[in-house]
Amino acid sequence: MSRRLPVIGILGGGQLARMLALAAAPLGVRCSVVDGSADACAGQLAPLRVADWRDLASLEQFAAAVDVVTFDFENVPAATAEWLRQRVPVHPSPEALAVAQDRISEKMLFRAIGLDTPAFAAVSTRSELDAAVARIGVPSILKTRRLGYDGKGQFRLRSATDVDAAWAALGAQATPHGLVLEAFVPFTRELSVLAVRGRDGEFRTWPLTQNWHHQGILALSCAPATVAPELAALALHKAQALAEKLDYVGVFALELFEHAGHLLGNEMAPRVHNSGHWTIEGAVTSQFENHVRAVLGLPLGATTLRAPSVMFNWIDALPEPVTGALALSDVHWHDYGKDPRPGRKVGHATIACADSVQLLARAQALAQALGREPQLAPALPVLHAGAAPRG
Amino acid sequence: MSRRLPVIGILGGGQLARMLALAAAPLGVRCSVVDGSADACAGQLAPLRVADWRDLASLEQFAAAVDVVTFDFENVPAATAEWLRQRVPVHPSPEALAVAQDRISEKMLFRAIGLDTPAFAAVSTRSELDAAVARIGVPSILKTRRLGYDGKGQFRLRSATDVDAAWAALGAQATPHGLVLEAFVPFTRELSVLAVRGRDGEFRTWPLTQNWHHQGILALSCAPATVAPELAALALHKAQALAEKLDYVGVFALELFEHAGHLLGNEMAPRVHNSGHWTIEGAVTSQFENHVRAVLGLPLGATTLRAPSVMFNWIDALPEPVTGALALSDVHWHDYGKDPRPGRKVGHATIACADSVQLLARAQALAQALGREPQLAPALPVLHAGAAPRG
Ligand SMILES: Nc1ncnc2c1ncn2[C@@H]1O[C@H](COP(=O)(O)OP(=O)(O)O)[C@@H](O)[C@H]1O
Ligand SMILES: Nc1ncnc2c1ncn2[C@@H]1O[C@H](COP(=O)(O)OP(=O)(O)O)[C@@H](O)[C@H]1O
Ligand SMILES: [Mg+2]
Ligand SMILES: [Mg+2]
Repeated sequence: MSRRLPVIGILGGGQLARMLALAAAPLGVRCSVVDGSADACAGQLAPLRVADWRDLASLEQFAAAVDVVTFDFENVPAATAEWLRQRVPVHPSPEALAVAQDRISEKMLFRAIGLDTPAFAAVSTRSELDAAVARIGVPSILKTRRLGYDGKGQFRLRSATDVDAAWAALGAQATPHGLVLEAFVPFTRELSVLAVRGRDGEFRTWPLTQNWHHQGILALSCAPATVAPELAALALHKAQALAEKLDYVGVFALELFEHAGHLLGNEMAPRVHNSGHWTIEGAVTSQFENHVRAVLGLPLGATTLRAPSVMFNWIDALPEPVTGALALSDVHWHDYGKDPRPGRKVGHATIACADSVQLLARAQALAQALGREPQLAPALPVLHAGAAPRG
Repeated sequence: MSRRLPVIGILGGGQLARMLALAAAPLGVRCSVVDGSADACAGQLAPLRVADWRDLASLEQFAAAVDVVTFDFENVPAATAEWLRQRVPVHPSPEALAVAQDRISEKMLFRAIGLDTPAFAAVSTRSELDAAVARIGVPSILKTRRLGYDGKGQFRLRSATDVDAAWAALGAQATPHGLVLEAFVPFTRELSVLAVRGRDGEFRTWPLTQNWHHQGILALSCAPATVAPELAALALHKAQALAEKLDYVGVFALELFEHAGHLLGNEMAPRVHNSGHWTIEGAVTSQFENHVRAVLGLPLGATTLRAPSVMFNWIDALPEPVTGALALSDVHWHDYGKDPRPGRKVGHATIACADSVQLLARAQALAQALGREPQLAPALPVLHAGAAPRG
């Protein structure tokens, strides 16, 4: 009598798939990964099939060997997801994926659930760009509608004279996918809701996270975010409305701007998300484990806080010396096993610490050990406030 | 520029190797496993080489592909460990392994560091057994000197008339390996020290663990153990003396009996240990991560408590329904991905909970959900005492 372990097929074999595989194993769940690259880092922990998203012969074999399909990468062609769904359950659904792949449908969905967005306009020609800038003004951001991530495919317009440069940078991508011009929001803070919804509709959110980006890439997250309770409740409520509207299954992130005491929806990620990496040590159940549970129809785990956390993202290459970081208590190191490359996410470190005074001290010690004080600096006011004695 | 990730070679591919691989990955460390069985469960997460411990051609290739060798299984022939050490660093050392493989050298080492043991006598003939029983008395336990684990290779003598049965059961193993007769200790409790020592001699212990066995196999552990502080300090001190005497590198467990307010050494395990599984969720750094750090010469992580923990061991087959367990908050499920088999360790569950009242309630809920009240019952007095309001 031999057990057959459930297998999750993951489209994309980066660090998210890698961390899904690490979370799946203790549940007795195996992962199987498809990626275009033979050295995709999830391949160090799970069988890796090297294939293009359009290689249907290969995807046919993949589908036959898995119980459910999910994503490490949301830009898998929706047609591929749809084709797979004819063969095996796909969570989140191709429809949810399609909405999240297009910045304009995403914003329209946000508005449909009563979540405001920055002013925006679809742009597909140079004259539409001129009209959009005239209407929305500057500062504003021109973005590709599709395929953007980590700040790629964006151009910031600081004055009306930047229109030429913006068009030079992104005009070539205006057809067929289109562009979108967004008002630049001088936000107070960036927040993300990490949420999970089960196959049976059960919905849970982790404590709200505050994020700091550098050059469009997440640099640091702190959880729980210290925002007004009504604002936090509203954010979680909007995430639930979104999940229900999409009949969503799995983990997702809703990225928000807080501006003048008001929430604006930026985008959603239909997958586990960088701003939720702190949940591995900081929450009772991590985003990775709950995604595995959700897509397999297992009960969801508790999303409650274990300890306030700070996550540093490592971009380009791991900071040195790694031993300096490992020597610090409460620092949890996550090396994705990747080669360094400019702009690449190669690892992160989470400090989880029940005592907020110590959390601040440890975050400072880590930043200092690695020469990363500038990365921590923007979050220091928040950490200091958290560490201050309560009045 | 391509990074070469460090590789730990693990002799034995069971659940310990599997959990080492899961802990190694976030450190950017790969594992490579050797086991005699093609379905060794660590092979689900790390490359697995199927080979016998005496297959030197295969071990030669293995050694060439790893940076350091360690063990998931302490009964690897010491000669194999010694042969490997000519080629690659081996931690813990073959000498430490050799001591732990022989119940008599182990007990002599304990005595050398001033740790008492149960009265014992080496036995290699039937007449030596008679003499040993005459000296040590009954109740007592006849054990194989070598290769015993999970209570295998043991016979309990309740009266002097059991000598024939004991010899019938184990006499065939008296040569070449020998037997040992031990006085049966009517212990108050069983404790284990989980400790780690780095290549540089840095030494750390996790909070003391209390263990309950059923038919010689670990059934349940609670940490931290509630013992007199002087006794706990003494236990940790003995573990350190042991580690220094052996110039030990890596994690080990020292199993102790507490009897009449006194500690007796039972045995040591020169590897990560079942009674330390709770450290995955219950401590800042798990035994698995610290073993990886130690054998690679990296700084050790903090061994401090994150939350009091209870670990249930699953033997034979996983209890049902798994969904009943997953639905409970603070329950962390660990399925080793093995086929069921009588006497086999197939998984465990840890409840880690900062609040001792809730810890008790959750342990009871888990036992009830899985029909495992009898497994929890012996630990209930300890959990109730922990949950009682402090005077
Ligand atoms: N409209 C905006 N106003 C202000 N900042 C923005 C705006 N859009 C994007 N940004 C900044 O750029 C970051 C990345 O942009 P985002 O739209 O989330 O794209 P990506 O898909 O690359 O994450 C955001 O997290 C935010 O810091
Ligand atoms: N001398 C003893 N007195 C009382 N109980 C013992 C004695 N030796 C072993 N036991 C019981 O049997 C269990 C397993 O025995 P142990 O010597 O640790 O062998 P193993 O190598 O199989 O773990 C112990 O944890 C303890 O519960
Ligand atoms: Mg974004
Ligand atoms: Mg034992």
